[in-house]
Amino acid sequence: MILEKALQDRNINYEVVAVTDMSDDEHPTVLRSMAIENHWKTYSIPYGVGGRFSVFTEVGFVTAALVGFDIEGFLAGAASMDAACQEEDIFKNPALLSALLKYIASERYGRIIEVFMPYGEALHSLSDWYVQLLSESLGKMSNTCLPYGRTPVAAVGTMDMHAQVQEHQEGRLNKVVQFIKVKDWKHNLVVPNTHSQYERLQALGNVGICDILNIALDANREALSSDNRFNMTITVPTLNSFHLGEIMFMHCWAVYFESIFAGVDAFDQPGVEVYKRLIGPKLARAKDTHNS
Amino acid sequence: MILEKALQDRNINYEVVAVTDMSDDEHPTVLRSMAIENHWKTYSIPYGVGGRFSVFTEVGFVTAALVGFDIEGFLAGAASMDAACQEEDIFKNPALLSALLKYIASERYGRIIEVFMPYGEALHSLSDWYVQLLSESLGKMSNTCLPYGRTPVAAVGTMDMHAQVQEHQEGRLNKVVQFIKVKDWKHNLVVPNTHSQYERLQALGNVGICDILNIALDANREALSSDNRFNMTITVPTLNSFHLGEIMFMHCWAVYFESIFAGVDAFDQPGVEVYKRLIGPKLARAKDTHNS
Repeated sequence: MILEKALQDRNINYEVVAVTDMSDDEHPTVLRSMAIENHWKTYSIPYGVGGRFSVFTEVGFVTAALVGFDIEGFLAGAASMDAACQEEDIFKNPALLSALLKYIASERYGRIIEVFMPYGEALHSLSDWYVQLLSESLGKMSNTCLPYGRTPVAAVGTMDMHAQVQEHQEGRLNKVVQFIKVKDWKHNLVVPNTHSQYERLQALGNVGICDILNIALDANREALSSDNRFNMTITVPTLNSFHLGEIMFMHCWAVYFESIFAGVDAFDQPGVEVYKRLIGPKLARAKDTHNS
Repeated sequence: MILEKALQDRNINYEVVAVTDMSDDEHPTVLRSMAIENHWKTYSIPYGVGGRFSVFTEVGFVTAALVGFDIEGFLAGAASMDAACQEEDIFKNPALLSALLKYIASERYGRIIEVFMPYGEALHSLSDWYVQLLSESLGKMSNTCLPYGRTPVAAVGTMDMHAQVQEHQEGRLNKVVQFIKVKDWKHNLVVPNTHSQYERLQALGNVGICDILNIALDANREALSSDNRFNMTITVPTLNSFHLGEIMFMHCWAVYFESIFAGVDAFDQPGVEVYKRLIGPKLARAKDTHNS
């Protein structure tokens, strides 16, 4: 491989590991065959687990371990949420309550878009993950042969208050905004009061950045609520691996519950097969053209 | 300022410039007052130009110049598109045609979401820009007192073929997917045919990365079209500053034309005032709490 050669040329030590489906011994994946051939260590993609759920498997853990992420705390959070999401009382079961409210919002009130909007850049990519979770789990044909799905929109505060909130506040009444609020961030840097001669800067002086984030979030949701714009806020005490595990596992359960209401299979993704079938022949033609 | 002190402590040369509204001499902005006080060079945010359009002003050009972006080519592309977008014949006016088709798609066919999906990571942030352009320009109350707007969704190929296309292909029939296709990229790296013993890798060997991108895009749109899923493709000959200027300016004209059809003002953003009014008092309370 090109990368391998570059590392060798520069005498940089490296180790290759493969993360791949290990379930079928008779028809091994390409990556597994290469791993056997080259004596690479392998990690497993559990059979039947879609990419959107694989953050809770070795697929996610390999990367997590490399960056020193607290996997055990993350799993403890997921396990704690797993128990809560099996409560029969809907008011003790956050995923069931969330799924039911969003399903009613969609089917009864036409709120068929969900804006997922944590506040704080550290949670930016959580929105991207949720986009895939909601799209692939629910965006499909239901058992009544009607297309279901709520379209996820990734957002992050405060940035998207400038980019998107105009439309959330005054556009069509077809959205639910899902806020994620971190009550206390680990580091609450305080804005220095260095320019108190300017009234507009003085207003921010000596206020913590995290307090400003939460003030902005509260203002955003109050503004939406004041005009019948549906929104929901999930608040975690602080941001750590435990609470991140809770938030993510709760949403996995929530799409599962909603899939039952909507009559779709949350765990397949047949829609992507349509373009996949078209790619093969096109690639073959491109190869022919290139080689002729 | 903290940053200034850090630079001085390390003997790093620096220059501060301010980009701010210079229109009101009697009530200068905070940044302008600071610039006068500190003898900073200033660049202008033209009065009344919203953030989404400001890429075509000094706001965009300051950053562009710093990274060595070809501003003149960009403006030449915008100017060329500006002429085309004033053609009376709709088939010679790409913005008018695009706006009309999307308006009809929305009002007649319920396609009230627009997925903006260029192929190629280099165009990833173009989607983020378009999200703001469409949200803020059209997501508002119309002159018939009905909320208008089409909700933009940022996407990029091929990544979001995994994350989002399931829902585009099988979810509700309420979307238009806007593809941006680059016919020939400047560098068309060819995939080396190093593992031809594996059939699935051999299929990609000796094919250019750009060809693979465009094959994936074509497969995606054909798959959508095969099931009455609305989509449109804009193709540029290559990606350079001229064509980028064309694409972006065309979409500015398009939201303007659509604003006329829909009866909204494309150039204001009254919806963001709602949360802004709520932030001030909350900040004041936070300051009181902090200081008491």
